[in-house]
Amino acid sequence: MPDGLGARLPAPLFERLALIGVGLIGSSIAHVARRKGLAKTIVATDAEPAVRKRVSELGFADEVAETAKAAVRDADLVILCVPVGAMGGVTQAIAPQLRDGAILSDVGSVKGSVIAAVTPHLRPGIHFVPGHPVAGTEHSGPDAGFAALFRNRWNILTPPEGTDPEAVARLAEFWRAAGANVEVMSPAHHDLVLAITSHVPHLIAYNIVGTAAHLEEVTQSEVIKFSAGGFRDFTRIAASDPIMWRDVFLNNKEAVLEMLGRFNEDLIALQRMIRYGDGQGLFDLFSRTRAIRRTIIEQGQETAAADFGRRAAEPDE
Amino acid sequence: MPDGLGARLPAPLFERLALIGVGLIGSSIAHVARRKGLAKTIVATDAEPAVRKRVSELGFADEVAETAKAAVRDADLVILCVPVGAMGGVTQAIAPQLRDGAILSDVGSVKGSVIAAVTPHLRPGIHFVPGHPVAGTEHSGPDAGFAALFRNRWNILTPPEGTDPEAVARLAEFWRAAGANVEVMSPAHHDLVLAITSHVPHLIAYNIVGTAAHLEEVTQSEVIKFSAGGFRDFTRIAASDPIMWRDVFLNNKEAVLEMLGRFNEDLIALQRMIRYGDGQGLFDLFSRTRAIRRTIIEQGQETAAADFGRRAAEPDE
Repeated sequence: MPDGLGARLPAPLFERLALIGVGLIGSSIAHVARRKGLAKTIVATDAEPAVRKRVSELGFADEVAETAKAAVRDADLVILCVPVGAMGGVTQAIAPQLRDGAILSDVGSVKGSVIAAVTPHLRPGIHFVPGHPVAGTEHSGPDAGFAALFRNRWNILTPPEGTDPEAVARLAEFWRAAGANVEVMSPAHHDLVLAITSHVPHLIAYNIVGTAAHLEEVTQSEVIKFSAGGFRDFTRIAASDPIMWRDVFLNNKEAVLEMLGRFNEDLIALQRMIRYGDGQGLFDLFSRTRAIRRTIIEQGQETAAADFGRRAAEPDE
Repeated sequence: MPDGLGARLPAPLFERLALIGVGLIGSSIAHVARRKGLAKTIVATDAEPAVRKRVSELGFADEVAETAKAAVRDADLVILCVPVGAMGGVTQAIAPQLRDGAILSDVGSVKGSVIAAVTPHLRPGIHFVPGHPVAGTEHSGPDAGFAALFRNRWNILTPPEGTDPEAVARLAEFWRAAGANVEVMSPAHHDLVLAITSHVPHLIAYNIVGTAAHLEEVTQSEVIKFSAGGFRDFTRIAASDPIMWRDVFLNNKEAVLEMLGRFNEDLIALQRMIRYGDGQGLFDLFSRTRAIRRTIIEQGQETAAADFGRRAAEPDE
């Protein structure tokens, strides 16, 4: 029978959680795991000595390990929070140290290529359950994390065929306890869905900011001055971590090129409407897109606050 | 010598301000004009009876006129706050009633076509000073306005050659008193600058939302669920007023098509980098765009708050 204390503090889901890479996502996992008591011990590490030093200062991990290899020792949950292109190398380094029965997961924005890079290094008895928490901000690094980042956001798990259902269920429980919703789908479908909801949007945001930066007729100072007309919102997305996004595009090439092809087709149709003055066609499209936003707000993935005008950030006089 | 009251309340800049059209911009002008005492009397009208009724209920205008023609009588400042495509027709209707020496302005997002549509209806002695306050939110209608909308935003005035400098100076004073910065440039240059900082960004936001809406492999429900990966921010822009934006694209065709051509060239180069795995090229672009955002924040056109993660809207537990 539980004593008073035991009844009030539920047992942690994991004994020892190892976070490999402590950027925005890694530090946010540490914050929420500590706040909700999801692991008895949180150990964190990062390839950058400066990041490890900062994590020690910030104090959101119980231990800061010098190497990934040292960090995973005895861990029953290991989450790789490194750029997609680094997943294979890190797994190779840690694989011999992984404890039998450990759950290994990741937070990469691409799943097919991560599975291909990680799986060959794993021996039987290690449960690899790839995941992708669809949440973020344009800030990066260990100072950027916060416990509420995953709340009411979706985490997509993409277990390869044959994965132990018990391991999937335990990881799903971890993420639900962190405030997230959990969805399970195939890696290939994940990569297609994210190509249109995340990768191509980032690509065109990076692209318009790049186009604006090297015009001859319009100065960069004018672009910045008059950015409140819409451009500003694209720079927010185009300020996301360059290494992370380089790796996303290199590792989800097929789906991104496929979705970009569709975007281009549609853009050409829109361009023709403008050229030939098809006001009805423009009005119809612009009305449909407005309705989609309403649905996103209704489903709790966005608030209706007029952030476009930054009203919240600029209180009325 | 001013009495005590006169010393505390500076004389209004204008006797009678007439606002033709009371959407987001028109209602925001009324709010700030009242708050700052910029006009002795504020009269507002709208082509929609329901909007006129709502303006009466909201009470931010001193008078609500039934027609534009009635609204402009005796006004020394008239501001047209209607979609770009409606400017010519409204001017034709009000021109005979405009008082000698009145300043006529507008808030259209396109300047060349507005000048071409408005000027032919005006007799000498009416000072037409076109303007464009570069500010907005994704909301529209008379309930959407607020006094701080223009604060620290830029208002671009594009007086045609021969405009009375005194009229330009008085309108600039009005906008500065409303909290805005004022810049004067040629209509053609305005239309080019706004094509890249506002019109093309809106176009590609509308386009990606449209593309996502009619995929076969990815359901609309998935697009909405996983929109926090970046797509969500585009739907904000793509929720802007459909009539206003239809008119912008129909009336700034040349500059939009020119800037869209450059966007497309750059996107094709980016697409090739992905196809051929040019990681260095991607990294270099993504690093440059991040620097541009820093400049926008430094110049006060944006805050550094991590709105991308909607942190402000979701207080920490």
